[in-house]
This record gives sequence, C-alpha cells and structure tokens, in this order.
Amino acid sequence: MASKMLSFKVRVEVWLKEGLVDAEGKTVEEALNDLGYRVSSSRVGKVYEFVIKAGDEEEAKRLVNEMCTRLLANPVKDKFIYEVKKIGVQ
Amino acid sequence: MASKMLSFKVRVEVWLKEGLVDAEGKTVEEALNDLGYRVSSSRVGKVYEFVIKAGDEEEAKRLVNEMCTRLLANPVKDKFIYEVKKIGVQ
Repeated sequence: MASKMLSFKVRVEVWLKEGLVDAEGKTVEEALNDLGYRVSSSRVGKVYEFVIKAGDEEEAKRLVNEMCTRLLANPVKDKFIYEVKKIGVQ
Repeated sequence: MASKMLSFKVRVEVWLKEGLVDAEGKTVEEALNDLGYRVSSSRVGKVYEFVIKAGDEEEAKRLVNEMCTRLLANPVKDKFIYEVKKIGVQ
C-alpha cells in the first residue's frame, strides 16, 4: 500500500465493432466524396491519452482494461485497444 | 488522367492544439478519478481511417493534408497527424 507508485503513459483507441454501421464514418465519407475525394471504407474512432499511477505494469494494464469497460467504451458496441508505457517513478 | 489509380490506407488523428483547454479530456479525467483511478494529463482526440484512391503516394499525402484542413480538422484549434500506406492497384 505504501510502496512506490509508477507513472504510465496510456493510449486507448475506441472503435465501433466490425459489422456495426458507423454512421459518423459514413457521414465523413460522403462529405469527402462531395468535396471530390475518392474515399471509401471510412471509420471514425476516439483516442484517449492520459497518465495513470499504478504499482507495476501488470496493474496498470488491469486498471486500463477496467476503465475501458466501465467508462471509455461501451462493451456492447465498441472494441478497444490500448498501450501502456512506463514513464517514471513517483 | 486515364492512368492507373492506387489505393492507400489512411489514418488521421486530430487533437486539440497544445495549450488549449481540452474540456472533454478534463471531463473524462474527472470521471475516472471519481471512479478511483489516479489519472492525469488526459486528452481526447479523434481518429479517422479510410481508403483513398490517388495516382501515387505523394498525391495521396497531398490530398489527405488538404482533406484535414478543409474538413477533418479545424486549423484554428486542432493539430493533425496522418499516415498513408499503399494497399493496392486498381
């Protein structure tokens, strides 16, 4: 409990699951085609970057996974991927 | 004009410029801290993936840069980065 905490740089991407209609991606695609670009297969996702404190990398990954399912992504319709990288000790 | 077109997989990330207050990032950070996670420096961006047709990689990059400034990003407040990768001939 009183042991040192490490800081981790976290990057999470949240995308609609394959097979679901990505309305925002479709809208962007149509707008780009209307502007004269030949664009297809457009999808839109969100990307989160933040710093988290945890005891070690395993704990950081576990926490990030939990944060994704609790808040950052909707497990029913979204998929997520994340990277965790140690940046320092505090 | 009638020469062959190539397909490029494009990935664009749009972020608020440094120094601007990222209200969405702040909201996410507060929500995560309320849930008990020790999170800081949170920022939220958008990521676009699509396929574009162009004559060569230079043209594809030029088009993507143009699309970013015209539609995908707001040059006043956003910065963007992109990757362009050839995926095939058509």
